[in-house]
Amino acid sequence: MITVGINGYGTIGKRVADAVAQQPDMELAGVAKTRPNFEAEAAVRNGYPLFAAIEDRMPLFEEAGIDLAGSVTELVEKSDVVVDACPSGVAAQNKSMYEEYDTPALYQGGEDADLVDVSFNARGNYSAAAGASHVRVVSCNTTGLSRLLAPLQEQYGVEKARITLVRRGGDPGQTSRGPINDILPNPVTLPSHHGPDVNTIFPDLAIDTLGMKVPATLMHTHSVNVTLESTPTAEEVRDRFAEESRLFLIPERLAIDGAGKLKEFAHDAGRPRGDIWENCLWEESISMEGNDLYLFQAIHQESDVVPENIDAIRAVTEQADARESISTTNESLGIGL
Amino acid sequence: MITVGINGYGTIGKRVADAVAQQPDMELAGVAKTRPNFEAEAAVRNGYPLFAAIEDRMPLFEEAGIDLAGSVTELVEKSDVVVDACPSGVAAQNKSMYEEYDTPALYQGGEDADLVDVSFNARGNYSAAAGASHVRVVSCNTTGLSRLLAPLQEQYGVEKARITLVRRGGDPGQTSRGPINDILPNPVTLPSHHGPDVNTIFPDLAIDTLGMKVPATLMHTHSVNVTLESTPTAEEVRDRFAEESRLFLIPERLAIDGAGKLKEFAHDAGRPRGDIWENCLWEESISMEGNDLYLFQAIHQESDVVPENIDAIRAVTEQADARESISTTNESLGIGL
Repeated sequence: MITVGINGYGTIGKRVADAVAQQPDMELAGVAKTRPNFEAEAAVRNGYPLFAAIEDRMPLFEEAGIDLAGSVTELVEKSDVVVDACPSGVAAQNKSMYEEYDTPALYQGGEDADLVDVSFNARGNYSAAAGASHVRVVSCNTTGLSRLLAPLQEQYGVEKARITLVRRGGDPGQTSRGPINDILPNPVTLPSHHGPDVNTIFPDLAIDTLGMKVPATLMHTHSVNVTLESTPTAEEVRDRFAEESRLFLIPERLAIDGAGKLKEFAHDAGRPRGDIWENCLWEESISMEGNDLYLFQAIHQESDVVPENIDAIRAVTEQADARESISTTNESLGIGL
Repeated sequence: MITVGINGYGTIGKRVADAVAQQPDMELAGVAKTRPNFEAEAAVRNGYPLFAAIEDRMPLFEEAGIDLAGSVTELVEKSDVVVDACPSGVAAQNKSMYEEYDTPALYQGGEDADLVDVSFNARGNYSAAAGASHVRVVSCNTTGLSRLLAPLQEQYGVEKARITLVRRGGDPGQTSRGPINDILPNPVTLPSHHGPDVNTIFPDLAIDTLGMKVPATLMHTHSVNVTLESTPTAEEVRDRFAEESRLFLIPERLAIDGAGKLKEFAHDAGRPRGDIWENCLWEESISMEGNDLYLFQAIHQESDVVPENIDAIRAVTEQADARESISTTNESLGIGL
C-alpha cells in the first residue's frame, strides 16, 4: 500500500483525496488545511484525518470544534508521497519541508516548471517521473492538450498545433473573478503559457496557443487545429480517438451543445460533484481539411487532473507501469462516459 | 445627390440612415418601419420621413400619434437606391418590390448570397458592385475578416487563414438570447458560415473558420491565424495594418483589455451610440511564428457594416471609385480612432 498525504484541501485536494481513498493500492494518511472552513468540516465528516497546514493556526480549529490529527509535518513524515494542492506559489514554499522529511512530492500545474524535476501527464510521459522527488502534474488545459496530442503525434505525426483556448473566467466557487459580459484576449500577447507548458511534456512539438477569457464558470473550451504529417480521414481520426480511455467523444444524438449540458449529463451519471475527468470532444466537430485537423473540446478545469495525480503517485513510487496505473485509476473512479 | 431610402429601421437601418444624412452627396428620402415602437418615434424626432413598411399597418401608426409620409412603395419609388435592413429573410420577400420600381437594392449579410448579383466589401471588391441591381453587404464578421485579409493577401500572399470567431450571444437589446454561463461551439460542425462567406469576396482564398458563442453582448472577438506566403516581421505587418483606414490598432498604453473598455473609449470619443466602425486589433497581439501570423481583433457587430453600406450606395450608382468613396465616408463619419 502507498501511504498518501494531501497538503491543501481545496478544489483539487479534496478531489484527489476522494480518489486516493478509492484506490485498491493506496491509503489516505490524511489531509492538511490552513483554515477551519466548510471544506475542513467536510474532511472530518468524510473520516479523513485532518492536519493543520500551518502549526500556529491549530487553536483556530479547536475553537471551531474541529478535531485535528496533528500538524502538516506529521502528515508529511508518515506519507510515502505527498500531493501538494495548495494555491499557486504556496507549494514552492513547502518544497523544503518535503525535502527535510525525504518525502516525494507532487505539485499542481500552477507551479513553475522549474520548481520540479519533471512535469507529468500519464498519457504523455508517465515513465519520466519514475523515482523523481518533485513532480508537477500539468494544469487542466495542458493535460487536456497532452491527451489529445499524444495519439495524434504517435499515429499521424504533428507538423504544427494551433490552439485557441476559450477559458472560463473562474470556478463556480470563485465569486470574485471576472469578466462579466466581455471577451478578453488573455494574455493579449502570444503565446499563452499553454503552448510552452505542453512542451514540458512533448519538448519537440510545434505548438502555438492563444488564450481568451469569457464570463463562464463551468468548463474551458478549446478550438483546436493540428496540421498533421499525414492525411487520415476524419472518421479514421475519430476511431483513433475512440481508443483513448480519457477522451470522451460526445455523440451527436445526445444533443449536448455546451458545458451546461455536459455537467448535467455527468450529474445524471452519478459522477461525484458532476466531475468530468475526460476530455470532451464533439464528435461532429472532428474535421479534416487537407492535412488540417479541426475539432472542439471542453475541459473540466476542476477535475481532469485528478486521475493524473493518482497515476503520478504510482509513477514516482514505481509501483506500476503506465498501462497498469491508468487502467487501475480508470476502473476505480469509473472513467469512461 | 443620390436619393436613398432605408427599408427597416432597427439596429443597422437607423445607423445607416444617420450616416446617409451626414454624406455630402446623399439625401435621405426616408425610412420604413413595420411597427410604431420606440425606434419609429426616434425616426420622427430626427426629422426623417417615416413610411409604413407594411401598408395594412398604417392605422397603427396613426393610433400611436406618429405621422407617416406614406407607405414603403412610395419610398422605393422616390429612391435612387434602397438599403434593405429588414430582419434576415424578410429582405428576400422585398426583392420583387424593388424590381417592380427598378430601384437598385442593398441587402445585409444575413441574407443568402444567392439572392443577389454580388456580395460587397468596400476594401475587398468595391468595383464588382458597379451598376448591379441587387448587392449584399456582407455581415459584420465577414466585413471584419475581409478588411484584415485584403492587405495581407496583396502584400504577403495568404497560404491559408484559420480563424476562431468567439461571438457575442446577442446584441445589447436582444433580451431573449443566450447563452448564460456557457461556451458553445456554434456551429459544432465545420466550417462556420464565415469562411464560405469570405469566399464571396475573395473566391480563391483558403480559409477555415470555427464559431463559438459566449455570454457577452458587446462585440465579437476573433482569434486569427494566417499562414502567409512570405515571412515579414511582426513590426512590418503592424506597419502595413496601420496604413488601413478601417483597422484600428489598439496601442498597449491605452490599457484596453476587452470590448467593455473599447466601448467606453468610443463613448468618451463622442461616437454616436458608442459605435466602433473599425476593426479593433490588439497591437501587442500581432505576432509572427515562422510564416504564421497571429492576432486578436474585436468587431462591433452593430456598426462595422455602416460605412460599407454607404460605400455600396456609391458603388452601385457609380458615383465614385473606391478610394474616393471610402475617403468621403471616413471623413463624414469621423472614422479613425
